[in-house]
Amino acid sequence: MTTLANSPTRPTPIILDCDPGHDDAIALVMAHRSKAIDLLGVTVTCGNAELDKCVSNALRILEFIGAGDVPVAAGCYRPLARPLVLGTADGPSGLEGSPYLPMATKTVEPMHAVDFIARTLREQDEPLRIVATGPLCNMGLFVLKYPELLPKIKDITWMGGVFYRKSEIITPTEFNAFCDPEALKIVLDSGVKLTMVGLDVTMQVLVEEPQYAEFRKIDTELGRVVNDWLLFYEKLHRNSMGVGGALHDPLALALIIDPTLVRTRPAHIGVDLAGTYAFGATVADFWKERGLPDNAEICTEVDADRFFELLYSLLRD
Amino acid sequence: MTTLANSPTRPTPIILDCDPGHDDAIALVMAHRSKAIDLLGVTVTCGNAELDKCVSNALRILEFIGAGDVPVAAGCYRPLARPLVLGTADGPSGLEGSPYLPMATKTVEPMHAVDFIARTLREQDEPLRIVATGPLCNMGLFVLKYPELLPKIKDITWMGGVFYRKSEIITPTEFNAFCDPEALKIVLDSGVKLTMVGLDVTMQVLVEEPQYAEFRKIDTELGRVVNDWLLFYEKLHRNSMGVGGALHDPLALALIIDPTLVRTRPAHIGVDLAGTYAFGATVADFWKERGLPDNAEICTEVDADRFFELLYSLLRD
Amino acid sequence: MTTLANSPTRPTPIILDCDPGHDDAIALVMAHRSKAIDLLGVTVTCGNAELDKCVSNALRILEFIGAGDVPVAAGCYRPLARPLVLGTADGPSGLEGSPYLPMATKTVEPMHAVDFIARTLREQDEPLRIVATGPLCNMGLFVLKYPELLPKIKDITWMGGVFYRKSEIITPTEFNAFCDPEALKIVLDSGVKLTMVGLDVTMQVLVEEPQYAEFRKIDTELGRVVNDWLLFYEKLHRNSMGVGGALHDPLALALIIDPTLVRTRPAHIGVDLAGTYAFGATVADFWKERGLPDNAEICTEVDADRFFELLYSLLRD
Amino acid sequence: MTTLANSPTRPTPIILDCDPGHDDAIALVMAHRSKAIDLLGVTVTCGNAELDKCVSNALRILEFIGAGDVPVAAGCYRPLARPLVLGTADGPSGLEGSPYLPMATKTVEPMHAVDFIARTLREQDEPLRIVATGPLCNMGLFVLKYPELLPKIKDITWMGGVFYRKSEIITPTEFNAFCDPEALKIVLDSGVKLTMVGLDVTMQVLVEEPQYAEFRKIDTELGRVVNDWLLFYEKLHRNSMGVGGALHDPLALALIIDPTLVRTRPAHIGVDLAGTYAFGATVADFWKERGLPDNAEICTEVDADRFFELLYSLLRD
Ligand SMILES: [Ca+2]
Ligand SMILES: [Ca+2]
Ligand SMILES: [Ca+2]
Ligand SMILES: [Ca+2]
Repeated sequence: MTTLANSPTRPTPIILDCDPGHDDAIALVMAHRSKAIDLLGVTVTCGNAELDKCVSNALRILEFIGAGDVPVAAGCYRPLARPLVLGTADGPSGLEGSPYLPMATKTVEPMHAVDFIARTLREQDEPLRIVATGPLCNMGLFVLKYPELLPKIKDITWMGGVFYRKSEIITPTEFNAFCDPEALKIVLDSGVKLTMVGLDVTMQVLVEEPQYAEFRKIDTELGRVVNDWLLFYEKLHRNSMGVGGALHDPLALALIIDPTLVRTRPAHIGVDLAGTYAFGATVADFWKERGLPDNAEICTEVDADRFFELLYSLLRD
Repeated sequence: MTTLANSPTRPTPIILDCDPGHDDAIALVMAHRSKAIDLLGVTVTCGNAELDKCVSNALRILEFIGAGDVPVAAGCYRPLARPLVLGTADGPSGLEGSPYLPMATKTVEPMHAVDFIARTLREQDEPLRIVATGPLCNMGLFVLKYPELLPKIKDITWMGGVFYRKSEIITPTEFNAFCDPEALKIVLDSGVKLTMVGLDVTMQVLVEEPQYAEFRKIDTELGRVVNDWLLFYEKLHRNSMGVGGALHDPLALALIIDPTLVRTRPAHIGVDLAGTYAFGATVADFWKERGLPDNAEICTEVDADRFFELLYSLLRD
Repeated sequence: MTTLANSPTRPTPIILDCDPGHDDAIALVMAHRSKAIDLLGVTVTCGNAELDKCVSNALRILEFIGAGDVPVAAGCYRPLARPLVLGTADGPSGLEGSPYLPMATKTVEPMHAVDFIARTLREQDEPLRIVATGPLCNMGLFVLKYPELLPKIKDITWMGGVFYRKSEIITPTEFNAFCDPEALKIVLDSGVKLTMVGLDVTMQVLVEEPQYAEFRKIDTELGRVVNDWLLFYEKLHRNSMGVGGALHDPLALALIIDPTLVRTRPAHIGVDLAGTYAFGATVADFWKERGLPDNAEICTEVDADRFFELLYSLLRD
Repeated sequence: MTTLANSPTRPTPIILDCDPGHDDAIALVMAHRSKAIDLLGVTVTCGNAELDKCVSNALRILEFIGAGDVPVAAGCYRPLARPLVLGTADGPSGLEGSPYLPMATKTVEPMHAVDFIARTLREQDEPLRIVATGPLCNMGLFVLKYPELLPKIKDITWMGGVFYRKSEIITPTEFNAFCDPEALKIVLDSGVKLTMVGLDVTMQVLVEEPQYAEFRKIDTELGRVVNDWLLFYEKLHRNSMGVGGALHDPLALALIIDPTLVRTRPAHIGVDLAGTYAFGATVADFWKERGLPDNAEICTEVDADRFFELLYSLLRD
């Protein structure tokens, strides 16, 4: 058989660190269904909801999509140096609007998320890619506990921060950065390669009427659940920001499958840890005015149409 | 009686509090030449340059444009609670590119800017409008020293802050806010009506090739000086932000003449006083999430073409 | 030559900047009655109570002691960069326990305290000494408004700060420093010579039973009023700190009459402006570890007995 | 009844979390030699020196005193949310003056300190006491990672903080608190019972001439090493603070053997995380002014003589 020779690259093994969350849920679906990705495990942090709810959501989503064999490890129940302030975009359970998701029969790994990541990194021959779609509590704790394993992380693709967004909002910060700015700073200072998928690009992948029309065409059980998630998620966005639901986390995940969906630009990012309003602000020094080395690649442009095509195709298959 | 119908509106008396500065200089020119404005005095603060340089610039500009009778009072030599960090947009003298401005023969008032403002307010029957185009040091000091005169200030039209600007910059703050955030907070808390003319709108009144073409047509001594200012000012903008010179301060001044140049929106503005990167951030709560009363009208849209028409006409006359 | 022995030293002219306040009141009494002091004026700041109450207290005290000719000027109604948090040691009026003080017939100067200080400095041939026994709002505002007059201030003897105090209290800060730390920093950075009379020494001049016994012996109208002040003042100290009333402000004033009452030590003092608990902390670098020049003389030891002898003698005369 | 006399109390099992450090070293010696203590393990944090040096010191000390069977686990290489600023009291190696300590033949546990603590807690039937004599990095990380095991910690006796100390120093903070204030706050907020053995009491257990005389009498190999440690340690104290070496960590350890050596007082402790000078300040609210529940017992008095008797006896045996 020559298939292999012809066949595309071996799927990229990843760990997905998340706080499901509706958009995390869709990222999970994408990671499971994409042939380009080998989902080695899911680690969970607090953020959109309390840790136990996010863990339960992760287990139920995986079970529902037939990914019951993907290990799930629970991580941080609180940010590193602040009280937990929950996100508000996903309702009290972190995944409202999902009444008929099954209860999970599978259980969580008997170890903390950071230990699960460490074990997984050690088992891999090559440095591993991590996609993080929540506050960086787990990744920050990992840097604190496992400095010797940092070279085994190839990079972190993180949904969070904001650089280009119009700041017509109550805070110039993005929730994942706001929730645990100290963890973000630890990761930024760690030397690990970081790609920031911030609101600058994620607020451009919006589910509006044309997108709904496409989603409705996917007439499968999965398609209907995703549609329900979007409808719930949409309501909160529409009320507070006047736009449809932004697929923040799915965009971060999609970059593993197709990095050409975005343009990026290197910069040194500073994070404010004090202040009344602006802690968690991610301030990018694109002009090297501070004389500090770049510590991130920042997504600055996105091809939203191609992103949605990718998403539809993954749901359809 | 038809007198009233025939008689044009009485010019609006104002005090201009500024730190010239190229764009302050153009605002001064506009204030002097507009029939709609009665320039009662100019008060000067540190900001674009040290106080003595800004005072000297103000005196020379007024002399050059034949406004030697307008009183000038020197104000704060430093921000209220921080060391002075100079602006960089206007060169060391605060008004580079003006070699042939005359030395001033007129002298500064023998009293501090805040005392000059107090005296002027007391002399007026009606509450007075103030246009502030620099850091708010003088206005902050005024609030501290003259609480009993605050009702005599009709409003302050301030060039400063930023709400809608893309934050692809080293700081999410605007210079006038960054330079003296404590003074800004004092003014915001004072109950005085404030209109914020921030980078959100001022970065939309850019001098690019079409505007230069118009300026070049104004073939007077004044026209040539303004053109020289713009060319110097432009260089710095072009290098750092890749756009032509933004006429920040002239826009603020223009709103006295024609308030319909902008749309505004009320909000409560918070200012961060701590933090490494984001102190001076002006965070607007348009959605009343913090439950605090509005303390400013924020300019959100501008008609740049009409602004430039107004400016050209004032230079031409 | 006997001339020198025969010619008593000319009384030291001072301005007293205060927020009466029971201990400020006693300092006022001392300043008026001491032949070594020429009280040129009293300037008032907010602190122990709102500005208007402190002004009223100052006027009434001066009238009561027959010092109706000493000018009183009202100063800052709020700290420079924070909301006013009133002291609690002196009751709501700032001078509880004084029912039979006369209402003042004299009135306040028609100018702000900082302008009064400026005028007085200009009238003096020699640089002038200032005693400050409240938050440094007025002195901070003076530095901001009159940099050219700073050389005419010989020194400021300030009651405030703490270095040696046992910190078994809710905050490691002293009230006058806590109330306006930005003003304190402005003064410390101004280059004006400052002597800090902090809790380290003032908590050692306590009115306990032996002192009360002496006060009771001073059987004059003034003696009885002072005794009543002490009894009221004492109650608050006793309840909160378990000791008698500490004569903070009188000790600062006494140093003009007899500087040998204390030992001092030069140091650079830093003031924290941020933080939840410790803003206003006055941190002395006696060991030059920060490499910054000394900006204050700090009182480290006091001869309490001699202080009280001085106080008794001034009340008795 | 003689039963009680005959049945000696079972030794108290403890884990010692430390950053050796001369005074940590003496605490280690005491823990090993006291019959009242069962040293289940030693966990190490960065602080006095980098982690690897502190680990090496711990291993060498244990080997030297014949405690090679006590497990040692390495913990945090950096504070949770700040860069590491090393202590200066113990020289570059963290244990200068110990040239003839053997190199360690034993090795460190193959797990992180927090995992070692977790395993040990799980193995114990009863909640365990922990003595912490360094920055609280490890204990903070433990709270973040193992919330479910907090009930298995009986209490933490921590050397750190300061309440009553004369603050004639560059900072009002104690080194262990200054080094990782975020970790301290995490522990204070965790609900774990904490006893703070701060400078208030530890600066009263000073090694001066009378103490040296006693130490010199202990003419054993161990006695001589301890004496050498003290002589080195002393030099730094003498130069900087003008007093002999303070046995900070040994006093904390001694409280396990004899809690009557100190008096304690409950209070809510706040820790400042921001500020220029005073971050890490441990501010005790003994008077319940903030309305927050007590979160620590604070040592306020110490019987230094009895402490030294205990120490001598442990070295002599
Ligand atoms: Ca998420
Ligand atoms: Ca300006
Ligand atoms: Ca006072
Ligand atoms: Ca230690």
